[in-house]
Amino acid sequence: MERDVSAKIRLYVEHPLGEAQTLPLSREQAHYLFGVMRQGAGDHLLVFDGKCGEWLAQLEQAGKRGGTLRVLEQTRPLRMPPDLWLMFAPIKKARTDFIVEKAAELGAARIIPVQTAFTNAGRIQRDRLQAHAVEAAEQCGGTFVPEVTDLQKLPALLDGWNADRRIMFCDEAAPSGAPVLPDAPGPWAVLIGPEGGFSDAERQRLRGLSHAHPVSLGPRILRADTAAVAALTLWQQALGDWT
Amino acid sequence: MERDVSAKIRLYVEHPLGEAQTLPLSREQAHYLFGVMRQGAGDHLLVFDGKCGEWLAQLEQAGKRGGTLRVLEQTRPLRMPPDLWLMFAPIKKARTDFIVEKAAELGAARIIPVQTAFTNAGRIQRDRLQAHAVEAAEQCGGTFVPEVTDLQKLPALLDGWNADRRIMFCDEAAPSGAPVLPDAPGPWAVLIGPEGGFSDAERQRLRGLSHAHPVSLGPRILRADTAAVAALTLWQQALGDWT
Repeated sequence: MERDVSAKIRLYVEHPLGEAQTLPLSREQAHYLFGVMRQGAGDHLLVFDGKCGEWLAQLEQAGKRGGTLRVLEQTRPLRMPPDLWLMFAPIKKARTDFIVEKAAELGAARIIPVQTAFTNAGRIQRDRLQAHAVEAAEQCGGTFVPEVTDLQKLPALLDGWNADRRIMFCDEAAPSGAPVLPDAPGPWAVLIGPEGGFSDAERQRLRGLSHAHPVSLGPRILRADTAAVAALTLWQQALGDWT
Repeated sequence: MERDVSAKIRLYVEHPLGEAQTLPLSREQAHYLFGVMRQGAGDHLLVFDGKCGEWLAQLEQAGKRGGTLRVLEQTRPLRMPPDLWLMFAPIKKARTDFIVEKAAELGAARIIPVQTAFTNAGRIQRDRLQAHAVEAAEQCGGTFVPEVTDLQKLPALLDGWNADRRIMFCDEAAPSGAPVLPDAPGPWAVLIGPEGGFSDAERQRLRGLSHAHPVSLGPRILRADTAAVAALTLWQQALGDWT
């Protein structure tokens, strides 16, 4: 059988994948594949479930409200990102979406929206943010989708923190040229504050934690979304899977 | 006289600034200051011109279609970014705007939209992109505004290139874990390709340039806007003013 290995469409599915399975398509997936992307029965695509790698699949039945696909063979194994979390204070909608997208692209394993003293958002739309993480993984060839958690309050998060996980604490008030990351492998989390920065009390608490490492992101003030991308980049370069 | 040093509004003005000057406000500036921000005569703000640093100023006349401000005293000298250019292939509108905003925040000195073999955009709105760079500088406390040039074709740009300026060539096809930046101070330019990457001919030409250094941005495929932020971050950390 001839394989269309040039399949460009990548779809995240919630079912655990394995050879010779037939999977149902949701209404949204059917709309995307057959309505938007003009695919039909017989066409190939790539699917991944976030756990079992990436698989070549073929569309079997195509309908307006659903359909089925058949899983053919694994094209790539699961590639886990490093054990890096991103904690960030949600900001305006578009920029929050952007942070989640970029965190998924840059290989964060978990994304935790955090409510700080100066965070405006009192709630988030977790499902929408999770959908952005899925879309980023689909677009960018990832086989893993980071979980987006519910909004958590910073004090409670720090109360329950396992000190084995170091915190890269991106602090506007850190002296420029501050020591960069210690060469410490293992679990980490990046912490980005809101546009107004951290409160004095938050900064004091974080500076008192031996597992938190204040880091400066240069002499210019960065927006929170820029800071998130810059911090994840620096971590990946120093301690992650970029080298 | 009491100074309102908590002035939060920062405005870019095109006039060269100096002590005790009176400057006219444009219609747009008047609308922003008096309509949107509810300022009035007597209120203070910060102004910068991209050349003479940041100055405290006071609004003198407030009108619907204009007004004047008086420049009081310099609050910060001009801080030039390093001699780093960003060359990028324009993509969808929102993401192109984003790249320009981020480049200004991250301290690029010049922003060059580049037409490559796989670039969709045949033209750009230079004035709109320049306005984004100005807004980013206003927001982020910068005293310098990078120039956004007209769209340039990559082959012509490379033909006229001064080899003293090294190129950080962000290549999806570079081997992961490729050597990072050489420790070479002096002028640099970051080059980011379009979503489809570079053509074989472009890649071959760039690889043949002794002043171009291919760099890998990790094992995941990054969108062009993510790649731009990540590359500028790595450069600033290695060779720029972040350390």
